[in-house]
Amino acid sequence: MHENVEIIEVSPRDGLQNEPEIISTANKIALINSALDLGIKRIEVASFVNPKRVPQMANAEDVISGLDFARAATYIGLVLNGRGAERALQTKVHELGAVACASDGFAMRNQGQTSIESAHIAANIVKMAQSAGRTGQVTISTAFGCPFDGPTDPAHVVEIVKILAAAKPREIALADTIGVAVPAQVSALIEMVKPHLGDIPLRAHFHNTRNTGIANAWAAYSSGVRILDSSLGGLGGCPFAPKATGNIPTEDLAYMLFKSGVDIGLDMEKLVETGLWLEGIMGKKLPAMLPHAGMY
Amino acid sequence: MHENVEIIEVSPRDGLQNEPEIISTANKIALINSALDLGIKRIEVASFVNPKRVPQMANAEDVISGLDFARAATYIGLVLNGRGAERALQTKVHELGAVACASDGFAMRNQGQTSIESAHIAANIVKMAQSAGRTGQVTISTAFGCPFDGPTDPAHVVEIVKILAAAKPREIALADTIGVAVPAQVSALIEMVKPHLGDIPLRAHFHNTRNTGIANAWAAYSSGVRILDSSLGGLGGCPFAPKATGNIPTEDLAYMLFKSGVDIGLDMEKLVETGLWLEGIMGKKLPAMLPHAGMY
Repeated sequence: MHENVEIIEVSPRDGLQNEPEIISTANKIALINSALDLGIKRIEVASFVNPKRVPQMANAEDVISGLDFARAATYIGLVLNGRGAERALQTKVHELGAVACASDGFAMRNQGQTSIESAHIAANIVKMAQSAGRTGQVTISTAFGCPFDGPTDPAHVVEIVKILAAAKPREIALADTIGVAVPAQVSALIEMVKPHLGDIPLRAHFHNTRNTGIANAWAAYSSGVRILDSSLGGLGGCPFAPKATGNIPTEDLAYMLFKSGVDIGLDMEKLVETGLWLEGIMGKKLPAMLPHAGMY
Repeated sequence: MHENVEIIEVSPRDGLQNEPEIISTANKIALINSALDLGIKRIEVASFVNPKRVPQMANAEDVISGLDFARAATYIGLVLNGRGAERALQTKVHELGAVACASDGFAMRNQGQTSIESAHIAANIVKMAQSAGRTGQVTISTAFGCPFDGPTDPAHVVEIVKILAAAKPREIALADTIGVAVPAQVSALIEMVKPHLGDIPLRAHFHNTRNTGIANAWAAYSSGVRILDSSLGGLGGCPFAPKATGNIPTEDLAYMLFKSGVDIGLDMEKLVETGLWLEGIMGKKLPAMLPHAGMY
């Protein structure tokens, strides 16, 4: 038996934010509860971004008000700036997820900041969370490549990591926002950032745009990462990244880890059922393959 | 730069054999030539099976007659028994691909043999090829799991490998016929069979049924395998294996290897174009993701 892996479910936030059809608050809450029912312990529940820019996330406060806070779960709210953090801290959300961009092109276009500025803002959000008695975590977006600037210099990711590590976030995530990474690159970047993390755990976030997402997750696991993001159904895509496709599917990531002897604490049969249920909610076939192939 | 990998294109055989629409001989030849044009050097061109069981392969001789034998390519014909080998040897095909089943359930149901019998028959086909001045190779199907018998005992795969190795095939391939394998299992099986191979190279063949196919290919590469099967578009499926889906897509496998610094000798831009062209021929969207996402 290998070590445990914590799967962080991101479908209610990263999964849905690019969907053109607005999903009702009730269905978002149902999705969150379904994820918890199958064993998920930590989940991105909403994003406190400008509703004009991401209409799907407009009902963040309503979603959080409707959650069961008696459950043994950590609810994460994504925030991109101080105003978002203030909104999030007015709710009962347990954890703030901040974002630092590893590429200037992405940071400037989406947040009007340089990548280094975005790292300082993210570090500040972590401190705001900590001051309010919550936890804060940071994801480094475009850590492997940017839709505007091309491949990301790993040395620059290390610079971002150093800024973030000083704020002592719960963890630092490396995100392949546009699904360009390959396993050799994942392993190499992880080895480069490791010496700068101190005791801060590393987390990884992959999109399956060129069919390498699950392989990248295995490479991250093989390099010691024990916290992985995924999305039920493989829902996802980034509203600000052209041609970005879904997150790696929770069902398929779980299958790979479970069959490799990794303890992930999820009910595999219920995972298959939930994947099929989610296709009903979304009214279309989703990228996750396990729900159609079935367990083995 | 890592070592070279040889990608064996299997779309004209494994890719097409499960397609309900009969593809014309001209289109099969066009597919083979397109694969060669982008740099493929070795390709499964047809299967000498009973046309009543696999109607898509009925025109094997016609396809081979239409190939350009002046090109620097190795054409492989799949054969399942002595009769098929005789048919293949009446054509100019360079190489015979034999199949041994690792599970009795699959072997009995499809060929009326035990798995051990199928290994001896495959070894004999290799010898027939060698006697005729051709090369012979063997693929071990259901090497990880069987649709009828469940997970395959790796020790039994080792027994099969021993029988096959004695015939000195060009290589022995481990096939995840129904797409159930995960990377940890791939690495473990490869380590188990390695001591019994002598100087015979190992090859691996994955189907992407539960989204682990590309990760399995990376695991095989990481364990030293330098010959990998894939199918343009991710075409594929086995007519005898319920719910089997396509081979791993050549486009996506190539992207992963190329971006990892592995020399595969393929024209990546032409690969994207060929993937899109194949969707036109097949009249539907295929599983390969790179043609839609584009190179990066």
